[in-house]
Parts: sequence; C-alpha cells; structure tokens
Amino acid sequence: MASNTFGKLLTLTTYGESHGPAIGGVIDGFPAGLELDLAQVQKELERRRPGQSHITTTRKEEDVVEFLSGIFEGKSTGTPIGFMIRNTGQRSRDYSNNVNVYRPSHADYVYDAKFGFRDPFGGGRSSARETACRVVAGALAQQFLNLASISITAFVSTVGNISINKSVNELDLSEVDSNIVRCPDNYTANEMISLIEQVRKEGDTTGGVITCIIKNVPAGIGEPLFDKLSAKLAHAMFTLPAVKAFELGSGTSAVFQRGSEHNDPFRNINGKIRTTTNKAGGINGGISNGEDILFKVSFKPVSTIHKAQETVDSEGQNTMMTGKGRHDPCVVPRAVPIVEAMAALVVADLMLINPTRNINHFNFK
Amino acid sequence: MASNTFGKLLTLTTYGESHGPAIGGVIDGFPAGLELDLAQVQKELERRRPGQSHITTTRKEEDVVEFLSGIFEGKSTGTPIGFMIRNTGQRSRDYSNNVNVYRPSHADYVYDAKFGFRDPFGGGRSSARETACRVVAGALAQQFLNLASISITAFVSTVGNISINKSVNELDLSEVDSNIVRCPDNYTANEMISLIEQVRKEGDTTGGVITCIIKNVPAGIGEPLFDKLSAKLAHAMFTLPAVKAFELGSGTSAVFQRGSEHNDPFRNINGKIRTTTNKAGGINGGISNGEDILFKVSFKPVSTIHKAQETVDSEGQNTMMTGKGRHDPCVVPRAVPIVEAMAALVVADLMLINPTRNINHFNFK
Amino acid sequence: MASNTFGKLLTLTTYGESHGPAIGGVIDGFPAGLELDLAQVQKELERRRPGQSHITTTRKEEDVVEFLSGIFEGKSTGTPIGFMIRNTGQRSRDYSNNVNVYRPSHADYVYDAKFGFRDPFGGGRSSARETACRVVAGALAQQFLNLASISITAFVSTVGNISINKSVNELDLSEVDSNIVRCPDNYTANEMISLIEQVRKEGDTTGGVITCIIKNVPAGIGEPLFDKLSAKLAHAMFTLPAVKAFELGSGTSAVFQRGSEHNDPFRNINGKIRTTTNKAGGINGGISNGEDILFKVSFKPVSTIHKAQETVDSEGQNTMMTGKGRHDPCVVPRAVPIVEAMAALVVADLMLINPTRNINHFNFK
Amino acid sequence: MASNTFGKLLTLTTYGESHGPAIGGVIDGFPAGLELDLAQVQKELERRRPGQSHITTTRKEEDVVEFLSGIFEGKSTGTPIGFMIRNTGQRSRDYSNNVNVYRPSHADYVYDAKFGFRDPFGGGRSSARETACRVVAGALAQQFLNLASISITAFVSTVGNISINKSVNELDLSEVDSNIVRCPDNYTANEMISLIEQVRKEGDTTGGVITCIIKNVPAGIGEPLFDKLSAKLAHAMFTLPAVKAFELGSGTSAVFQRGSEHNDPFRNINGKIRTTTNKAGGINGGISNGEDILFKVSFKPVSTIHKAQETVDSEGQNTMMTGKGRHDPCVVPRAVPIVEAMAALVVADLMLINPTRNINHFNFK
Repeated sequence: MASNTFGKLLTLTTYGESHGPAIGGVIDGFPAGLELDLAQVQKELERRRPGQSHITTTRKEEDVVEFLSGIFEGKSTGTPIGFMIRNTGQRSRDYSNNVNVYRPSHADYVYDAKFGFRDPFGGGRSSARETACRVVAGALAQQFLNLASISITAFVSTVGNISINKSVNELDLSEVDSNIVRCPDNYTANEMISLIEQVRKEGDTTGGVITCIIKNVPAGIGEPLFDKLSAKLAHAMFTLPAVKAFELGSGTSAVFQRGSEHNDPFRNINGKIRTTTNKAGGINGGISNGEDILFKVSFKPVSTIHKAQETVDSEGQNTMMTGKGRHDPCVVPRAVPIVEAMAALVVADLMLINPTRNINHFNFK
Repeated sequence: MASNTFGKLLTLTTYGESHGPAIGGVIDGFPAGLELDLAQVQKELERRRPGQSHITTTRKEEDVVEFLSGIFEGKSTGTPIGFMIRNTGQRSRDYSNNVNVYRPSHADYVYDAKFGFRDPFGGGRSSARETACRVVAGALAQQFLNLASISITAFVSTVGNISINKSVNELDLSEVDSNIVRCPDNYTANEMISLIEQVRKEGDTTGGVITCIIKNVPAGIGEPLFDKLSAKLAHAMFTLPAVKAFELGSGTSAVFQRGSEHNDPFRNINGKIRTTTNKAGGINGGISNGEDILFKVSFKPVSTIHKAQETVDSEGQNTMMTGKGRHDPCVVPRAVPIVEAMAALVVADLMLINPTRNINHFNFK
Repeated sequence: MASNTFGKLLTLTTYGESHGPAIGGVIDGFPAGLELDLAQVQKELERRRPGQSHITTTRKEEDVVEFLSGIFEGKSTGTPIGFMIRNTGQRSRDYSNNVNVYRPSHADYVYDAKFGFRDPFGGGRSSARETACRVVAGALAQQFLNLASISITAFVSTVGNISINKSVNELDLSEVDSNIVRCPDNYTANEMISLIEQVRKEGDTTGGVITCIIKNVPAGIGEPLFDKLSAKLAHAMFTLPAVKAFELGSGTSAVFQRGSEHNDPFRNINGKIRTTTNKAGGINGGISNGEDILFKVSFKPVSTIHKAQETVDSEGQNTMMTGKGRHDPCVVPRAVPIVEAMAALVVADLMLINPTRNINHFNFK
Repeated sequence: MASNTFGKLLTLTTYGESHGPAIGGVIDGFPAGLELDLAQVQKELERRRPGQSHITTTRKEEDVVEFLSGIFEGKSTGTPIGFMIRNTGQRSRDYSNNVNVYRPSHADYVYDAKFGFRDPFGGGRSSARETACRVVAGALAQQFLNLASISITAFVSTVGNISINKSVNELDLSEVDSNIVRCPDNYTANEMISLIEQVRKEGDTTGGVITCIIKNVPAGIGEPLFDKLSAKLAHAMFTLPAVKAFELGSGTSAVFQRGSEHNDPFRNINGKIRTTTNKAGGINGGISNGEDILFKVSFKPVSTIHKAQETVDSEGQNTMMTGKGRHDPCVVPRAVPIVEAMAALVVADLMLINPTRNINHFNFK
C-alpha cells in the first residue's frame, strides 16, 4: 500500500533524495536459490549513469551499489535484498540561489503544495536520480526472467523529429548499445546525436520515444481485471519522470484502422498457436498471447533549459529564471535501461503470480 | 492484492461473467455520511447500456443495479457497499456453435492458455459487460468528488479519421450527451455517426479516441513514486477493454517540442499560482498542479466483425470464422461513462489519501 | 488495502449488514480447475446457522448461499467467485425501541464514534451474521487444501469452567459434530450443554475456548517477517467477534517453562525430520515445521444478556437496558466452523504464496 | 503485499540478516512536517540493545542508526525515511561448527525447508536482530502519536512463575525503566532478576509476559472487518520472535466469566461516555472505545540453552548439540521497547486511516 512500493509478489520499495546521504531500496519476494551476477547489476547502472557520454549531463555520479542483505554465497536467499547507493556527485547543495523559485514544469511547486515544504536540493525526491534504484531491482528481476529465456530490449526510436524508419523486425537489437544515443540504426543514431548536440548548444532540450520489445513471454501472463499486463506496463512507465504517452502495439494508430485490418489472425504455425500480425503488441484482453510484447513510451523535453523563463517563487511572486547546472538535453538515451528495468519488474511479478492461478501448476503429494 | 480489486483506500472489487447469473461488486472505504443519489447511478448505467441508440449494439440488457449494503436511510454508512446487476439480456447462451473457435484479437485464447479452460459464453469474464460495475462505483465516487466541486467530463474526440478540430477550451462540455456519439461538437458528431453507420453496413468496426478533462482538482494530489496521479490514470484506463494508448496533456506531440516550447510558465494570476499553458495536462512530477487534468485514451476497432477471418480452434486447427451477434461497430460512445468512472475512482482514492500525508491536515486535540 | 478484504493471493472481500437486503462477498485468486462441491459449502453454513439446536439462538435464518460467478460446469474458472446470502430471518427490524441505547460491550457506541451514525438494526455491520460469508469462503479454501490432504478440525474444548481433560491426541476428532456443543468428548459435552442450559435460564451467557488442529501442512509455509503463519492465524482469529485470546501450541503456559522443558527436540523418525514434542504448535519462527498446527481461541461471554444493565444512550444520558431477542447463551458451538473457515483461508493463501518463493518450484522450459 | 512490509498507510519495510553487512528499512507514508527527535530514536535502540545489563546477552552491538532520507532540516518531508544499522558486533561468523545442526525450536530447519538453503550465521533473517528496525520505526511513529497525546507503555509483568501482584492502575508506569528487568514494581523486579540470574547459571532460559497499556486513543480507531485494532495488534505481536499468546483485556480469563460479570457498563462521566470497568481492554467490536487499551503478550523461554539436547543435522542424522555463544536467559526485558514499537506502528497506521472514513473529517472548500 505504501506509495513507494511497486509490485505485488515481487516488490521494490525505494527511498532517497538526490542530495541526501544515499538512495536505496528493498527488493522483497525475490525467489530463493538464484545465482546472482552482481557485476551485471553494476553494468546496468553504468548505462543509466550521468556523464556517460557528451550528449548526457556531464554531472559525475559514481552510482556504486552496495548490497546489504538477502544474498548468501552469491545466491538469493529468499529474504529481502537491501541495497544502497551513496550520493557522492552532488556539488554540495550549490543550487541554493534558486531554491525558492519554482522551476517551470518541475515538481517543486506541487511538492510544496502537497507536503507544505520540501527538500529543495537537486529536486529532492522528485529527482530522476531515484530511478537508479529501479535499475538495480530491474537488473535482478531480469536475472530471474533469464530462467524463462525472456529478454527485454528497449531502444531510442525517436528524438525530436528524427525517427527510425524501420520496423522492429528489421532492426538488429544487439546494436542498441553500439552508439551513445542507444538507437539500433546507426544512420539514424548519428542524426539523433547531431540534433541533441544542436539542442544543447541552443540551451534547449528535446523529447524522444523509447520502444521496448519483450521476447518469449509465454501466453497467459497478466491478471484480469486490474493487473492486466498492459495496465501494469502503462502504470510502470508513467511512474518514470517526463513520460507523456504509453502505446501498446499499434498504439494511437489503431484508431484509424478498421477491425478487419487491425485484428491479428490466429494460425497454427509449426504446431503452435500464433498470430500472423501483431497489432496487439503481444497482449489480448490484458494477457500475453505468446507473441512479442511491444510498446512505446513518449518522453517530453527535459524541463531544465538554459533560457530565461517566466515563473513564480514560493511566495507566489512573478519572477524570471534561467536553468543552471549540468542537465541532459534529452532524457531518452539514459532512460533506456530504466524502461527495461521497469518492464522486467512488471513481467517478473506477473510471472510469479501466474502459476498460483491454476491448480495444474501445483504439485501436491 | 487481489487482481479484481482496484484502489487503495477506496476500493472496487468486482465479479461476474457476461452470461452467468449476475455481475457485481463491493465498494470499500467509501466515507460515511454522504447522502447518495442512487437514481444518478442508474442514470450513468443508462449511458453505458447496450441498445441505447442505433450506432451501438442492439443487444438489450436491463442493467438494473441493486444495492445490498452500506447505505442506511440514503446515506453511506462507511461499511462496504455491495451491489449486483442481474444478467438478463443474454440470449440463453446461444453462441455455442463458436465456443471452440478463438475469435481473433479477443481474449478466448489467452484465457484458455492461462486458466486451462474458460466460460465461453459471451466472452465470460473478458466481456466488456464487467465495465458496468465500474460505472456503478465511479458514479458513487463522483458523488464524493462533488463535495470538492471536482467535475470529470469525457467525450469522443475522434472516430476513425474524423476528429474534433477545436481545443478543449472551445468546446461546450455540457453538450456531450446532446448527440448519440457523445461528441460535444455537433457538426463533427454527425460526421462520426455517418462513419459508424457506414462501418456497420460494411460489417466492420472502427477505433476512436476519448478525451477526458477533470476540473478543480487541487494542487498536491497524487503520491510519488508509484501512485502518481498520472500512473494511476494510465493504469485505470489500460484496465479497460480495447485501449491502445494513454496520453497525458501534450501526449505524443511532446516529443517534437523543445523544452522552451513545452514548459508551462508559472504566473501569479489573481493571487493564485497558475500556469499560462497546460502541456502538462495538469500534472507535474505525477502530482496535480491545480490546472485542468487532461488526457486522451485511444481505443482499437472492436474485434468482432461480420467478415470472414482466419483463425484457429481450441485444438489448434486452422479454420475460418465470421462474427455473429449484436456488437458495437465502435466502442467509444458507450465507453465515455466508463472512462469517467475510472477517472473518478482514481481521483477519489488519491483525494482520500492526500490529507494523511501532512500533519497539518490532522486536528488532534 | 480495503479493510473488508482478507488475504493476499487468495482474498475474501465481504459486505453486508444483518438487517439489510443481503450479505455476500467475492473470493478472488481462487485457482482455476478445481471441481467444487457446492453442497458441502451449504453444509458448512448449516453448522454455523442460528437455530440449529436448543443451546443456540432460536432465531431462524435460512442462509442459502447463491453463487454468482467464477464457476463453470462445476469447476472454478480462476475468475472471482461472487456469492450472496439473502437476509430473510430478521423480524422486520423490530429492535427499534432500543436503537438509541448503547448495548454494553457491543460495538454500537464505537460505530457511532467512528462513522457519525450507524445502521442500528441487529448490530448492522458489527453483527456476527457477517461470519456466514467467511464460512462460504473457508469451505471453498478447504476444498483447495484437500488437494494437499490438509485437514482442519476445530472443537469446543472449554465452556465456562468446564474443560476437556484429555490431550488432543487422545480425542477422536471425527466425533466433533456428534453432539450439539461440538466437543469430541461426550461426557464433557454433556456437562457443557448443562452449563449452557443453566446459563440461558439465568438470562446470562458464558465464554468458551475453541481448539483447532491443522494436519498435514508441509514444512515451510508462512512468510517472514510479517506474514508468519502464526501472525496470520492470530490476526484471522481476532477478526472474529468476541475473541479475547489467541494461543499457539503451549500458549500462555510456555511462560512457566524452562527452555530445556519447552524446546521440541528434532529426531529422524522413519526418514523424516520430526519433533518428539510439539510445544511449538507446529510453527517455528513463524513457519510451519511439518508437525500438527495447534492453537486455541478464547471467546468472551456473549454481550447480550437478559438482565438489567447500566448504560447510556446516544445522547450520553445514563439509562438501564435489558437485552431482548433470541441470542446465543454461548458462542463457541456455532463458532467452530468459523474458526475452521478462517484457518482455511490463512493456510490456503500461504500455500499459494509459498511456491513462488523458491526457483525450484518453477518449471520454465 | 511484500511479506517484509508492515502496515497500510504507514508502512515499515525491513531487510537484513544478523551477520550480513547491515540491517535497515524504509518507513513510508510518514506525514510531512513533523519535527523529529532522532536522539530519542537512538535512545529507544539502547533499550533494546544487547549487553545493556548483566541479565541480557553480553554480546556487544553498537546499533547506531543512520537516517538516509525523508528528513530535511529536522522535519519529516513526507517522502520515505530510509535508515540503516551496520552490523558490527558479530564475532566474524564464528558459529561455523554448528551450521549444519538444526537448533531445536529455532527456525533453522524451516528456513531450509522453505528456501532450500539459508544464511546460517547467527540465525540469518530469523535472528531477533531484525527487531532493531522495528524499534526505529516505532520510535518515529510514537513521535507522530505524541501529537494526539497517545502514550504507549509496556512492562514486564511475569518472568517464569513470578508475576506482579497489582493491577495496572496500581502501578507507577514511569518506573518501568528504573530497573534492568523493566518491571514497574521494584520488589517483584528484584525477584525476577534473581530468577533470571539463577536460570542463566543453570544454562537454561525462562519465559515471561509483557503487558502493554495505550492511553488516550480516541474512540473510533480500527477498521472493521479485517483491520480491527485488536486483530492488527495480535498480528503485530505475533510477528515478534518467541511469542506464544496474545490476550486483549480480560484475555483467557473472560472464558470463566458470565456475560453479566464481563460486560463493561457505559456511564456518562463528566460529560463523556466511559465504561466503569475495562474487561474489553479498550476495544469493542475491534474498534477503540476511548478507554485504555490493554493487552498481554506471552513469550516462550529462549530456545538457545547451554545444555545438551537431541536434534538432527541438515542431512537428517540424529545428533546432540549444546548451545553456545552469548544469549539472553530471558527475552522479555529487551522485548519491552519492541512491543511498544509494534503497538505504535499499529496505532499510528489506524490513526492515519480513520479520518478518511468519514466525510466530516474533510475540509473541502
């Protein structure tokens, strides 16, 4: 019930502000007996880390995760996995000149409205820094999903007005990390990088789209009515900062199609029930149908810009402000591992729940 | 934790298949002491009811709600509100010739994959009939929201390739129910109706978009990190059948904007902190900022079409099928009250939680 | 999160007042594919039914359960099982002369204090009538537990100052229902019945103890820290009306023992790890150890007595009242099936959760 | 839903093994704006700390809590409060000779049965060391309760066969910490201390009882049906190690009383509705009635004894073992602050929920 806990059987509870002593969390319900690759978790954190390339913020944060419990001799014990990432990179709370000014389209104002006051440094709890905790948990969830050969790959499909011009099937998904923008089409990637460089030069920011594909989810995953796989994914993605749209399969384009175009015919293909198209994005009635799960997440342009903007201060006085500090001109390259992490948490949780819903899964002697 | 329960402090738990004895539910956590207008609840059910106009299914269902508990002398008692809607309209399980054929893009196959078998009549639990329960609960939640003058209005903004050409502010939202398609622009409404009539004649179906606007939500509603107002709305909408996309405020168009265009400047307007634009859709960092909350929900074309389609049966044998029965050619006119209902449940739940998060809301003597 | 929902994976949500139209509930998370014996459910209701013998209330209530969903051709479908019991036995709200007087040790006053007002007839939501819903759910949970050969037997071990003088192992548990007080020792049963008859004649009431034994729960059931099997059982029993104490295994007598007396030695018995004594009541560290689970529940004397008592009315004026109506002189004979039902819900829920906590239980291909 | 999370609106999620790097937790839902006295939290930890007196274990653990988030300039911010206690006192995992032997009445065996293996050092997750986290959270919850003048006092009322011979009202509760056994009657305290010294000399252990009294809880706290204040307290106490019984008010003695003796008459006392006796322990129908809340918790003798005992090893071979290490001869002196902490968490959670259940508590403009 706590609003900083995500999931049902497999849960992540997080804490931490960007400029406090640490961020961290507790992963509960993780099944016992899995050999964990903790170096891989750290590697995922590197993919999210600030300062990883010249198109991200140049802020340096070490983001070294320390595991505190729930692992014994390299294996999950079934008890809660506590972890912590010390905050080290913040320039000693140097934002202080701005703390009474509400940054436009940030959460400063609404935190004050809700809680009466707030930790003003670096966005406090509303800072995207908290997403590092999700990457830790998602990386472990992925290691559970590996048992079922489920893979999750997100990539940047759009930056501003530049989009990949190929279908997902035409892409080589192993190429996602071959460039700094995380677009698996190198030509488009270069265009995206140029656009981000230009936008940064202008002191401005741009939005983008991340596409995610999940392979090998068996048919039957997701719980009607309210824990549909689709609904949980939509929920998960909208807990991320800057998200403006979630689309499943055909997404907004479904509106313009006739049922006869949009329906996915079932066919027996090599003895398996498959669909010959995938407008559904792998989900019928909220439950996986065995096809690839496909969704898109649209992110707005980062709100911190190096241009003068109208705003108010905490007294409600009109004023002007210009963003300072080292911020991302476009959030999507660093958001790729975060989208993957949240998807992994959703799928792992529903994979754990699913066998409990059918007596055939129980082996009572 | 049950997957047929929605909400945290204010919860709706539902049950029921389309062709069983009844559908119904339990509303728990509803505050005591509210005078309830039960006729208004029935009125909302009429807006969702099949057979309400010539552009919906002609199936007749009475949909009379019976309240079983939690109300005494017209007022909520604070105890659970049980309610039930008897199933009466179903043509005595007459779908039987088709029950072994998986209807394309329906949930027949995935229910079998998940549960091993299913109630095949009328879609069983996956039937949109269950949404009647949400309308009941949402109508009561709205009566709670009336105390805070919060209004929720959804309307059809797109059917197939026909869209309203005006901004939300240019529309007269009191006109939504003035036509059978529930589009508050009469000229566009007529075009939409013509399109739906044509699509039905072709034995086909079309998708559509519902826009929803929520007024008077105070700043501060929504719980970071995982119960953000935006995330709960996205989740709620994706629990509805046929939903393919959820967009908040600027939605997918945010991607193409620069931060300097997309940011909403804060201004002091008549002593209040307001924004002069509303790309945010009334939500910053997942928390309401006091502006109108705006979102769009895209629905796919209804999957049941009166055209021959390839599919398989439950043995995995390829076959052909043609949809029968009385189905909607377009789901959005009847989905308007359902979108409103789910939005009301989300906002009411978060309105109940919000005062618990700040000691200033407590009056301890 | 709703306070009228019990359980995590297997949940029961209930509604209903004693004198409203109906009581009922929703069982969610019940695994698909189980052949259900609905006549058995009704039979359990008969064990709880008022008017079943001359030592219970003579009030007549039919208590016929109607199942509304979640069952198809006799098998659970995995979707929510809705059910309802119409209220028929109440003498048309004939308590009205008393409704403004707070009955001592009843919940009248606290409901008013909490909710501002209440449904005053027959105790409203605080009536023990709601426990019929638990019996329905528990009877279905028991049918799931039958798959694992888990049996749950409760019986009356004490009424007032009369107690069974034998250990659980000396009793023939199949004899519980052989007498109307549900004590499996016929000599003691007769003494208990005499005591209840006498107490009733005096217009008074008496307390009692129910002992419960659960057999064949495998080792490993229960979730540390907060969903320990012991804690869930204690919680479940304390949701029942009139409960004053819950004791596990040795219970309050553990206090007087030395560790060297109280510890249960482990031994290898026929190739199995067993304990040679069972002070633990089958639970170590909150988790089942494979031995019989044993607990006791103490119930206070029924609060409604036919004697004059001091009390106040809802205006806070001192007054006197004498209980009227047909009430039980002792609650324990009818509470036996309710204790079993709640135990079944707890054990079934934890049996569903347990396999999710260990990767060895998963069969991924 | 996670089993290491306790509470609904105010939640505590904990992690940590006794011999891992750290234990810790996350407190979520704590209201914003409260000035926190963190030194007081540390002080409560000292009351639980090993080595505090000669009748506790002589093990030295520093138990210094570090707060990591959710507090800004001394006040709660409404965001999650993360905290951590480094494990420092453990003698470098020196238990190793015993790790394959199942200690009688400990959780070693059931952890292996459940999870397939376990962290064997110092009891791993089943160690009472985790209760330090509850003390931290409970101490903060108490600071919230201070706003409502709610006080919680637990004390040792029984050790083995030595009990306080006075009623709660005859005791000076401010004297609880005046002696090392935490019994507010000095004569009895000395007897208890002697008994514990003797038991330790024998290499044995003894059980005990803690009584808890909660003052100034207003009438109306607790949520029917399943979140009754009584049920939540019973649940909370049974999550603690070594608990065997929970009794509310009259407890097991209620069984022997007639209704006419046991009922608590209501009277108007100085304009307030009060009861003239308190068999109820301050709770009617699961909801507080404004009187003192009274309950008792029975603890078994500590399972680790310095005497030879029969047991088995993890291969199921019969063997003998003798407990080693520095353990408590009686758990109750150190359990006093833990009982208080869990009670504080329960009451604070239900105090937060209560105002949401009644429209009169809302101040909508």
